[in-house]
Amino acid sequence: MKLLEDRIRKDGVVIGTDILKVDSFLNHQMDVALFQEMGKEWKRLYEGCGVNKILTIEASGIGMACIAALEFGCPVVFAKKGKSRNVSDDFYSAKVISFTHGGTNDILVSKAYLTPADRVLIIDDFLASGEALNGLISIVNRSGAVLVGAGIAIEKTFQSGGAEIRSRGIRIESLAKIRTMDEQAGIEFDD
Amino acid sequence: MKLLEDRIRKDGVVIGTDILKVDSFLNHQMDVALFQEMGKEWKRLYEGCGVNKILTIEASGIGMACIAALEFGCPVVFAKKGKSRNVSDDFYSAKVISFTHGGTNDILVSKAYLTPADRVLIIDDFLASGEALNGLISIVNRSGAVLVGAGIAIEKTFQSGGAEIRSRGIRIESLAKIRTMDEQAGIEFDD
Repeated sequence: MKLLEDRIRKDGVVIGTDILKVDSFLNHQMDVALFQEMGKEWKRLYEGCGVNKILTIEASGIGMACIAALEFGCPVVFAKKGKSRNVSDDFYSAKVISFTHGGTNDILVSKAYLTPADRVLIIDDFLASGEALNGLISIVNRSGAVLVGAGIAIEKTFQSGGAEIRSRGIRIESLAKIRTMDEQAGIEFDD
Repeated sequence: MKLLEDRIRKDGVVIGTDILKVDSFLNHQMDVALFQEMGKEWKRLYEGCGVNKILTIEASGIGMACIAALEFGCPVVFAKKGKSRNVSDDFYSAKVISFTHGGTNDILVSKAYLTPADRVLIIDDFLASGEALNGLISIVNRSGAVLVGAGIAIEKTFQSGGAEIRSRGIRIESLAKIRTMDEQAGIEFDD
């Protein structure tokens, strides 16, 4: 999606060859007009797939998921990051390693809000190792809901998460795919 | 706002006389069509106030803040919950006691995204003791931005946060104000 790639080139800050800061428009300050265009693009890509629920994870996925949900005309559920001691029988949970903070989070979704009647699109801001996405997928699978696919804002295709998940037949639509990035040389996108 | 009050009566679950669960439509599963009507109502209430930035706090404020921001045509900044060791000179921070989890969170906003050029509307899902709102207000004040007011989804007026903050001349527009609630007797709203 050219609009998002252009914005990343303009306002993203590359640190080393691995870290991309997009907190001026995506995950601390949020450009909701951009989110609206992203939502329209995911809607176009998943047109006719019968999506009736969007699943995301706190915190930075929530804004873009809610605005996308206006396009799909469906509710959003966000997975909460919690600790095992809070997990009850009423929740689906999965363990997710956080590369940002270190350590492991349990992510939790109430069983009431994911059911076999749901056709789920997962939306999140980043895909790199695939930890968070794999956690969300395992929760969808255990709920009996149908996983339609995933909509990702920025995928780092030089990490293996996206390829591994696609190899299991899961559809992922990433709006900007970064093949390489470097503080000096800048960012190269996949087509 | 009748639409929100009706929804709380229909789908809210009162536990004891103090806890209101609204996670089927507000803060776990999220009804974005409802959020759009709430955003329109805040826009109507703050029309002509020159709001050019919305500030909220992770996680459950983010969805309604982003959808309201579409009405206002402005960006959203969400305060992150962090730990003191992560606080640098680049962030405004405030301490907020969490009644849900116990303990104290530092909330953080990058100095880059709140400046004297900003006219800020704070949006959050709940107002009760006023802890989170007071933290956000103190961050806005230190940034030199103008605080236009706050838009709250549900205020528990039987707790003192709202009255205390209004007594300092700060405008708060709460879309549903709960005067009393009780597991048996149900919910009474202020006019």
